[in-house]
Amino acid sequence: MHFMTALRAAWRARNSLLCVGLDPDPARFPAHLHGQPDAIFRFCSEIVDATADLVCCFKPQIAYFAAQRAEDQLEALIAHIHARHPGTPVILDAKRGDIGSTAGQYAVEAFERFGADAITVNPYMGRDSVEPYLEYADKGVILLCRTSNPGGSDLQFLDVGGGERLFERVARLVADEWNASGNCSLVVGATFPNEIARVRELVGDLPLLVPGIGAQGGDIAATVEAGRSADGTGLMINSSRAILYAGADHDFAAAARRAALDTRDAINRHR
Amino acid sequence: MHFMTALRAAWRARNSLLCVGLDPDPARFPAHLHGQPDAIFRFCSEIVDATADLVCCFKPQIAYFAAQRAEDQLEALIAHIHARHPGTPVILDAKRGDIGSTAGQYAVEAFERFGADAITVNPYMGRDSVEPYLEYADKGVILLCRTSNPGGSDLQFLDVGGGERLFERVARLVADEWNASGNCSLVVGATFPNEIARVRELVGDLPLLVPGIGAQGGDIAATVEAGRSADGTGLMINSSRAILYAGADHDFAAAARRAALDTRDAINRHR
Repeated sequence: MHFMTALRAAWRARNSLLCVGLDPDPARFPAHLHGQPDAIFRFCSEIVDATADLVCCFKPQIAYFAAQRAEDQLEALIAHIHARHPGTPVILDAKRGDIGSTAGQYAVEAFERFGADAITVNPYMGRDSVEPYLEYADKGVILLCRTSNPGGSDLQFLDVGGGERLFERVARLVADEWNASGNCSLVVGATFPNEIARVRELVGDLPLLVPGIGAQGGDIAATVEAGRSADGTGLMINSSRAILYAGADHDFAAAARRAALDTRDAINRHR
Repeated sequence: MHFMTALRAAWRARNSLLCVGLDPDPARFPAHLHGQPDAIFRFCSEIVDATADLVCCFKPQIAYFAAQRAEDQLEALIAHIHARHPGTPVILDAKRGDIGSTAGQYAVEAFERFGADAITVNPYMGRDSVEPYLEYADKGVILLCRTSNPGGSDLQFLDVGGGERLFERVARLVADEWNASGNCSLVVGATFPNEIARVRELVGDLPLLVPGIGAQGGDIAATVEAGRSADGTGLMINSSRAILYAGADHDFAAAARRAALDTRDAINRHR
């Protein structure tokens, strides 16, 4: 199914704009998983099973798997989500960005090897570095626009002419030129609600992936009010650590469910 | 050994500014390797053994390994280079870029898991997205500045104030602020010699990694004249496909050696 179709269906069916980010850090796993060879898969799949009916998508962060030599567990995890929770799109958070021939290899990695439904991509190298992903017309391509980290302003906030900021130029390029197949989205951090609102003005109802609530301090009310589209959807609001590590013991998945439910409901109060 | 120390020693000892890029595409391997489970390692290690005395560094491109589920062969390849060709720095071409906590995981992947001596990094997310790599003070951190692909101009050529282009701002940020530990370098494509010269003006003798000669059409003479530092070094001039696929049969490694020798000598004629 097309990523955008699946996402819109999940927004409605789960009544949720919440994206749970899967950033597995074995040092923070409950004690009974320590030393288990498939600890990453077991931890993440229990989180997934406990929260799938509360989310519009999941977002595994590939760096956490790669640092642990656990690509096989990432493959198994995405297959598990698709098998057990059909209709739940999976975004591979990889932020890749390279010339066309290499980008083609990264697209194979994300979409064919891992079976992801969407990927995050860095726009710094321009259009032909993004095209190999766009050619998978049923997959989502989520471009970094305004990121939630302190250094995000170093380049993204530069004035590129007539008062337009670099992140605004990226938003315009994506909405007006790169989105011909209707499979683009943008990353806009929750720590900058005014800039979420500005991006929303520029891109119509393009979906926005919003990291930065929870551990990074972004405000849920301000994020939703600034970023929702006309029909009260349009957002994938990501929370990772605040949900994954809500509990630290055998009950970690139940604690994650409670945290996910609270976050989903807090988001819904402002839609 | 510090990446920069190893690089300078290799420039002198091998009398070479050539970087051989390892972008293994199994469809282009000689027939006797087709279907072999370790074909990627065997292909790349034969190229390495045939060219190591002619290069200042090797640059495996991780996407080509990841698309083939061959991370184990990448680990083995880098270990092989370090064991058989000591003093030859290995750049992991990964172009990662993410928030600090995730960048820390990518640094573990590149430097601890794969044992790379340097990594390429995307600057779009700013300083704190680069710091986790910089903290490995003996490793090289090579920031994208002006890339060799057609879309490179979409963002990198934007005027960010007073006639300064975005890639010039990146060059200044890296040289003046991010290079406190002396372990930074920049990627500047061979297809834009005037811009290589401009970056050289801005960054003193900072090493530049220059892709884009060979298959991508950049001119060797113009690249060397524009980019060399005062002592005739300062460049890692990358060639990938023109060397890897110089031959298509059992003699592919010998053909690669001839192509590498020709390229090294063509570079040296203009130093």
